[in-house]
Amino acid sequence: MSEEVKPESVTLYPVSAAAAPEQEAVCIFGTGDLGRSLGQRLLQSGYRLVYGSRRPHSCGPIPPGAQVMSHEIAAQSANLVFVCVHREHYDFLETLAPQLKGKVLVDVSNNLKKNMYPEANAEYLQRLIPGAHVVKAFNTLSAWALQNGPSDANRQVYLCGNSPEAKQAVAEIATKLGFAVQDRGSLAAARELEDFPLQLFPEWRLPMHLTIGLTAAFFFYLLAREVIYAYVDEGKDISFRIMVSLANKVFPIVSLILLSLCYLPGVIAAVLQLYRGTKYKRFPDWLDRWMLCRKQLGLIALALASLHVLYTLIIPIRYYVRFRLAAHTISQIRENKTSVFDTTMGWRTDSYYSMGILGFGLYVLLGISSLPSVSNALSWREFSFIQSKLGYLTLFFCTFHTYLYGWDKFLRISYYKWYTPPGYMLCLVVPSVVLVLKVLLLLPCVDKSLTRIRQGWERTDPEDISKKSLLT
Amino acid sequence: MSEEVKPESVTLYPVSAAAAPEQEAVCIFGTGDLGRSLGQRLLQSGYRLVYGSRRPHSCGPIPPGAQVMSHEIAAQSANLVFVCVHREHYDFLETLAPQLKGKVLVDVSNNLKKNMYPEANAEYLQRLIPGAHVVKAFNTLSAWALQNGPSDANRQVYLCGNSPEAKQAVAEIATKLGFAVQDRGSLAAARELEDFPLQLFPEWRLPMHLTIGLTAAFFFYLLAREVIYAYVDEGKDISFRIMVSLANKVFPIVSLILLSLCYLPGVIAAVLQLYRGTKYKRFPDWLDRWMLCRKQLGLIALALASLHVLYTLIIPIRYYVRFRLAAHTISQIRENKTSVFDTTMGWRTDSYYSMGILGFGLYVLLGISSLPSVSNALSWREFSFIQSKLGYLTLFFCTFHTYLYGWDKFLRISYYKWYTPPGYMLCLVVPSVVLVLKVLLLLPCVDKSLTRIRQGWERTDPEDISKKSLLT
Amino acid sequence: MSEEVKPESVTLYPVSAAAAPEQEAVCIFGTGDLGRSLGQRLLQSGYRLVYGSRRPHSCGPIPPGAQVMSHEIAAQSANLVFVCVHREHYDFLETLAPQLKGKVLVDVSNNLKKNMYPEANAEYLQRLIPGAHVVKAFNTLSAWALQNGPSDANRQVYLCGNSPEAKQAVAEIATKLGFAVQDRGSLAAARELEDFPLQLFPEWRLPMHLTIGLTAAFFFYLLAREVIYAYVDEGKDISFRIMVSLANKVFPIVSLILLSLCYLPGVIAAVLQLYRGTKYKRFPDWLDRWMLCRKQLGLIALALASLHVLYTLIIPIRYYVRFRLAAHTISQIRENKTSVFDTTMGWRTDSYYSMGILGFGLYVLLGISSLPSVSNALSWREFSFIQSKLGYLTLFFCTFHTYLYGWDKFLRISYYKWYTPPGYMLCLVVPSVVLVLKVLLLLPCVDKSLTRIRQGWERTDPEDISKKSLLT
Repeated sequence: MSEEVKPESVTLYPVSAAAAPEQEAVCIFGTGDLGRSLGQRLLQSGYRLVYGSRRPHSCGPIPPGAQVMSHEIAAQSANLVFVCVHREHYDFLETLAPQLKGKVLVDVSNNLKKNMYPEANAEYLQRLIPGAHVVKAFNTLSAWALQNGPSDANRQVYLCGNSPEAKQAVAEIATKLGFAVQDRGSLAAARELEDFPLQLFPEWRLPMHLTIGLTAAFFFYLLAREVIYAYVDEGKDISFRIMVSLANKVFPIVSLILLSLCYLPGVIAAVLQLYRGTKYKRFPDWLDRWMLCRKQLGLIALALASLHVLYTLIIPIRYYVRFRLAAHTISQIRENKTSVFDTTMGWRTDSYYSMGILGFGLYVLLGISSLPSVSNALSWREFSFIQSKLGYLTLFFCTFHTYLYGWDKFLRISYYKWYTPPGYMLCLVVPSVVLVLKVLLLLPCVDKSLTRIRQGWERTDPEDISKKSLLT
Repeated sequence: MSEEVKPESVTLYPVSAAAAPEQEAVCIFGTGDLGRSLGQRLLQSGYRLVYGSRRPHSCGPIPPGAQVMSHEIAAQSANLVFVCVHREHYDFLETLAPQLKGKVLVDVSNNLKKNMYPEANAEYLQRLIPGAHVVKAFNTLSAWALQNGPSDANRQVYLCGNSPEAKQAVAEIATKLGFAVQDRGSLAAARELEDFPLQLFPEWRLPMHLTIGLTAAFFFYLLAREVIYAYVDEGKDISFRIMVSLANKVFPIVSLILLSLCYLPGVIAAVLQLYRGTKYKRFPDWLDRWMLCRKQLGLIALALASLHVLYTLIIPIRYYVRFRLAAHTISQIRENKTSVFDTTMGWRTDSYYSMGILGFGLYVLLGISSLPSVSNALSWREFSFIQSKLGYLTLFFCTFHTYLYGWDKFLRISYYKWYTPPGYMLCLVVPSVVLVLKVLLLLPCVDKSLTRIRQGWERTDPEDISKKSLLT
Repeated sequence: MSEEVKPESVTLYPVSAAAAPEQEAVCIFGTGDLGRSLGQRLLQSGYRLVYGSRRPHSCGPIPPGAQVMSHEIAAQSANLVFVCVHREHYDFLETLAPQLKGKVLVDVSNNLKKNMYPEANAEYLQRLIPGAHVVKAFNTLSAWALQNGPSDANRQVYLCGNSPEAKQAVAEIATKLGFAVQDRGSLAAARELEDFPLQLFPEWRLPMHLTIGLTAAFFFYLLAREVIYAYVDEGKDISFRIMVSLANKVFPIVSLILLSLCYLPGVIAAVLQLYRGTKYKRFPDWLDRWMLCRKQLGLIALALASLHVLYTLIIPIRYYVRFRLAAHTISQIRENKTSVFDTTMGWRTDSYYSMGILGFGLYVLLGISSLPSVSNALSWREFSFIQSKLGYLTLFFCTFHTYLYGWDKFLRISYYKWYTPPGYMLCLVVPSVVLVLKVLLLLPCVDKSLTRIRQGWERTDPEDISKKSLLT
């Protein structure tokens, strides 16, 4: 870039790596931040470095050990040129086409936002200088990693380009700089690479908004039903219950709803395929988007379920619970009552806990299987076995856990404070619908039709359609 | 393929990707489900698509934008041909050998079961058309992924083939379709790739059967000893204890046995090597199979141990436990008894919990280190340090935890109901044997011999054998 | 190699893989342990095998099916030669330079310790025989894996070499032997590959030492303050509390300190950059080393936090706790006291638990995101969002959790036994400093300067420096 004109070069730390005899030369166009950072690292790794600059004599500080020349001369001194220039200034490179012919041009640029330009920067560069071999690389690394070498999310250099030899040359440098190289194919992949550093969990946005919305809704609903109701109706201040008791209702409720929302689109898709009688018709856009964020929905649901587990397990060490238990024992003694052990209650609460534990165990298994390295090691048959079969089992366990929690409260009018149902009843709606629909889809007659459709068979008789749609 | 003859093409959704000027042509043989799914995706990714069909004019619906021709003409229109035809129909391709000469043939086929044919489909195809460059690819993806692009376990396309250029061409297409490519070497790897989609956790089968068997055995054993005994002997119905108390005995018992079974084969192998005096003799088949499923045994043991932890932690919120504790307090008051704090009991129970927690913590560490991405990042020295050193420490902690649980009950006759030992005593047998054998193997004299053998030294003196075998 | 001279070959297990017609020949130099192990596996995979030996007629046992010849003749019988000879004996290979010209030489050697020789073994081999194509490979596998095929941490064969064709040939063999191949670039990477098997968690050493030191220090500090103090001052033996109560103080204390130590170097670096007015000056060595082990510090802190969670959750099932609760209830009844529920106490303890749970939940999220496969799938923007933003939030939650634990004890003199502060007060020092500094760095005026510096801007005016440094 060379925007800043400085009279003398700032002294950087000395380059320790002694110059090897067969030092390879590389060239960097641009002496801005990116060019300096990358240059330092190249010098440290034993390369001979030549900067190309518009104003070679007033281009600002460059790492000691490097030379600065005009672009024309610099280009001739090396076979590989890093273009550390903003895309807006690429046009001047067109005049260098003769000098750059046959050279490897490494495009490291990124844009400030997606779709700023009709074509990827690297494709634009290739179009400007058709005689050069453009390779897109290094742009997914942070400036920190370019200067200091690989660190956690900065370990891999993604490459793409049309010339295998050019990619090989860039891969060599990346390897020497300590990075792991991943070839992403031809220059057509450049746009994808350029968009990568810009993304901030794009596929998590919709599920996160949904989670925040549901959490807020249930929080205020339960706040009204429990805390405010107790204050209005009985004049009791139980606001301290917000921190644990209320949280431990909101989290499992939202978790169960999110988990069922993972499986609802699959059921809807099956119904749609049955109705349409073909698998080749595209699903509506909202269904496609929904299906694409099932994994994220499930992982958020797992996180909330984990919080539910922790909130449940600390119950017995809470001051409030200890106080209540002691008070209960004391009152029993003072009133000289003897309570009798209720075996049904024993069965019910123990089953309730057991279902919850097994459901959570399977849930964690689903979570582990969606770690990238685990899911890559599975065949899709194995993956779909876990995510579908075990997933429905998880949903069943968790739903059953919630029904056992409700037990006979569904019928007792006293639980419907202010004529509103408790939170756990509301959260049972979607999972129950999903499970019932799934059972219907597993009926042999329905399942057979669906399997045929998914194997590519198409129904053409219009009467057939109306007949079949009755089944779903 | 092309079994279904339909008079008119079904209208699919419009292909949105505008035709790029330099559209590359690919050819698909076969207009069945696979050919149509793959074709749709290729058209969307901007390829020009030609189908080859036996009956080009009556081959059923094809995606709009594609052409259908006879196999001969279709083959000539593209350099790359996807063979979406069942292996049984490959023989007709032999007649196309002249047209297919020098072309890249992509074999995407799978079989219905393993070892259906003496050679891999791709190798068979290569033998039929020696002049073509056969590449095995895409067969590990589900039909869903072929039509809709990459998803979780469908992200990687595995390639193999004898021609690097042909593989490069297929890799380019796979990359453009959005997949990550993994080269698996020459066509000799085709069989492995063809078997991959068929597998459903093959290496988990034996450990799962063992787990189910052990769990069932201990469940009925403990059911008899606890629930049925209480009913027969004392007339009490404590069947509600099945859900939590019994589960929380069966799970840790099976877990500890499975964990020790992970380390038993290593010890047996060492004894065998010492006895034989060489490492070059193959182990018996059962030992080999056993050693190959140690990882799975360990992971199932970890899952059961995690359930044990959860079942233990919910103990204090159980209705039964709260009832019993309150009843105990009440009876103490009514009978005006004062119980004295027993420091030994304090030491014992706290040590018991502490051992359990530390053992479980190490256990989770072992589990994390066997995640593919973590174990790949470890050197084998590091991996064997964790799995061997820390693994034995885990086994020791967990065994010690169980001994502390038993404490002095081993000697009290009242615990041997119906003359059977409690479950935790039974589960201590294998781990104790493993730990004792391991300590013997770590004795300097034994350890030295073993190390020498493992470094390639072989004992030849027969007297030496008899002498050494006394040590083990 | 070939030190042991034996009259007759030991019979190994029969090679089952039937000889394929087009068996490829490979050669192994050296008949020691490594050569035999590798040879067995090559024979099983269907290769024709020729050993090269200094004493072909007395070289000790070799796997049946292999031939032994002199080095000269053996070299001529195959295009690919595995050099299974110690580096000290490489010099004799120089005499074979004519026979090895154009051959692929696979260097599988390792050294006993790092930096034993000025150049990597493979580079030394290449220098001895410049006409051969040296490929470094297989050295990262254990002898066990070389003989028996891939297993967990032995799945990947890392290659490097200057000739792509030679690497391709070695990759083919590795694939046939069942391994996954990773190309690591040119022969310059050989040293890295040779150091890999030697390492035993090098980056974990400093954090582990720190952890052990801190744990020991706090253990003895708390032992003195709690157990010994109680014994000396009140004559009570509460030594049983070491196992759970003390552990549950030491672990969270060390965990919080380690967590804050993850974020302290980042804050120091920012202060340093602000003071210096440039990002191009290198950090002091201690700061660099510190920054490189932040991930390890964080993971150990997470492990200790997990232990803290488990130790906390078993509190209510401890004998001591149950005894104390019952005793409290009994004393309340006997003394006919009625305790009143304290809402402030309810708020405080519930907030305390809630903060702890949320902090731990975020903590686990940080841990998951540092799994290699997860962090590789993240862009650095995403990774730094999690590790920085969510990381500081975690630190805040955990610090707040500890302050809530302390509550009003900070001001009560009775808690300062023997004039020493309780452990949790000590552990709050570093996190509080980090959080205060971080808030200062986020002040708009400071943040703007820092951002400019990190974008490559450099301050040159000396007055500017003194002015700015006042802010930090």
